Amino acid sequence: FQDYHGLPAFKNEMVEFLSALRGKKVKFDPNNLVLTAGSTSANESLVFCLAQPGDAFLLPTPYYPGFDRDLKWRTGAEIVPIHCSSSNNFRITPCALQEAYERAQKLGLNPKAVLITNPSNPLGTTMQRDELNQLLDFAIAKTLHIVSDEIYSGTVFTSPEFISITEALQDRNLKDTEMWDRVHIVYSLSKDLGLPGFRVGMVYSSNQMVVAGATKMSSFGLISSQTQYLLSRMLGDRDFTERYVEENRRRLRERKEMMVSGLRSAGIGCLESNAGLFCWVDMRHLLGSDTFEAEKEVWVEIVREVRVNISPGASCHCSEPGWFSVCFA
Amino acid sequence: FQDYHGLPAFKNEMVEFLSALRGKKVKFDPNNLVLTAGSTSANESLVFCLAQPGDAFLLPTPYYPGFDRDLKWRTGAEIVPIHCSSSNNFRITPCALQEAYERAQKLGLNPKAVLITNPSNPLGTTMQRDELNQLLDFAIAKTLHIVSDEIYSGTVFTSPEFISITEALQDRNLKDTEMWDRVHIVYSLSKDLGLPGFRVGMVYSSNQMVVAGATKMSSFGLISSQTQYLLSRMLGDRDFTERYVEENRRRLRERKEMMVSGLRSAGIGCLESNAGLFCWVDMRHLLGSDTFEAEKEVWVEIVREVRVNISPGASCHCSEPGWFSVCFA
Repeated sequence: FQDYHGLPAFKNEMVEFLSALRGKKVKFDPNNLVLTAGSTSANESLVFCLAQPGDAFLLPTPYYPGFDRDLKWRTGAEIVPIHCSSSNNFRITPCALQEAYERAQKLGLNPKAVLITNPSNPLGTTMQRDELNQLLDFAIAKTLHIVSDEIYSGTVFTSPEFISITEALQDRNLKDTEMWDRVHIVYSLSKDLGLPGFRVGMVYSSNQMVVAGATKMSSFGLISSQTQYLLSRMLGDRDFTERYVEENRRRLRERKEMMVSGLRSAGIGCLESNAGLFCWVDMRHLLGSDTFEAEKEVWVEIVREVRVNISPGASCHCSEPGWFSVCFA
Repeated sequence: FQDYHGLPAFKNEMVEFLSALRGKKVKFDPNNLVLTAGSTSANESLVFCLAQPGDAFLLPTPYYPGFDRDLKWRTGAEIVPIHCSSSNNFRITPCALQEAYERAQKLGLNPKAVLITNPSNPLGTTMQRDELNQLLDFAIAKTLHIVSDEIYSGTVFTSPEFISITEALQDRNLKDTEMWDRVHIVYSLSKDLGLPGFRVGMVYSSNQMVVAGATKMSSFGLISSQTQYLLSRMLGDRDFTERYVEENRRRLRERKEMMVSGLRSAGIGCLESNAGLFCWVDMRHLLGSDTFEAEKEVWVEIVREVRVNISPGASCHCSEPGWFSVCFA
């Protein structure tokens, strides 16, 4: 049972990799890293650590459908959507944040945190500097936690560059403030290194209560030591991982352009994006009516005729019918 | 993401191994096997599946201290101890079961299941046929579930033989009855194959609701595919695993005899046992008084003087002061 909660060699390599993916603008301390068997349990652990039943996590829409299971199912916490709109490319606005916050309160819930995916799943976009700053302002004003799920941070294949929440905090001189202790990052090697089967997830937080709680919870899902040994060697080969990430980005960009141009020639547009393994596809013009029923009809038709199972926006809690998440990798 | 919930090859080998450890008297269906990252989460998942907050799991004392975390912490369920006594070597009696059941009800709790460890941690004993039958009678009468944690089933190093709850059910012709669907087994490779770092645990149940629920929950802690590939090869070598288990038993028996005779020459007795990596040691005569304070004093003295950290019975919720769990492997 030595190193029960993670091999030091692996954690050391892991924080180097996290830093490298962020252009070395941010440093990570291995003592603040909690390993979990995949990011699914990393997210759930954070909810268990931060929320009681009756507390709410605010999530910008559209969001990853799995969050309904991961964040709510066993914790008793609730998700309140932050409604984002195509009118500004689904960016998070102070107005939308405030509206969601008040809606949570009207539902008798206690807003506890905002959870973002950056890069966004399913949008495939990275959050911009002003968007991050507005989110920080809001979280400071309302004393909210921020959970930043950055599992696609290594896939950013074109500009603008990825800005992590940590970098935004640093640049605002918020290091070692109370807000600094209310920001928690979720990461995984499933997407950026293409290793979903290895079940390598993690929570990174400067909040020692969260680190202690999540560490205790990680007993419910630790990473195989065999896998940790392999990965500490692999990540230790910095040249290899750098080239892997670079080549992965190049291929993703290529694939994405192929799909976007194919869809364009069929008269279908996509939200402009720069990351992820998926596009947010606009099929509003193909809907018989501006309803989720019509969206479902289009989805059924695509499954039947094209035999491709794409995700309708409704499954991502999108508030506008006609958008679909299409995976290109 | 193929075979997300477990490689078929691994599950097939796993059920063969489970059957072999039970003298092939019992067959297991790979479709009823849910893989989890260690038995810690297997136990927690079963509580999440079977119990609501306010429900109680009845556990014979002494019990593994980790259960307070594993079963209660995140689930909201409660543990009600079934008080076992040295007068009958800590066997579970119908009387003790009934008393615990009534105590749970008086506490306003709804008794939902009995959880046993067989072989017992920390006693190192296997449950006898009549004990299993009495437990089954009780569970049938009260419509309770039985969770049988059998993670030490491969360590039984001397007679009597290990009798699994499944075998007891079969021999009573209870297969395919309602009781059959209320028995759930927890297993792990951590002890029997000495692989705690690999995080290989599992739930086995014929109850399809439990299998479906636990499978969905296993997303919070799956087993690394790399580890599953390795282990399907290893378990596939039946000759190797058989010899490994045999040699492990031989060494455990040897170690245990060494420790027992050493303690005996110091005037200290142990509960007669036939399994596990630990003995249940009787130091009642060393206590200044028949209290848990006196037990703690002896524990502190042993830590300070002998520099060995053994577990006082109080940590295992034993109801009699003076017993200690001592690991010999």
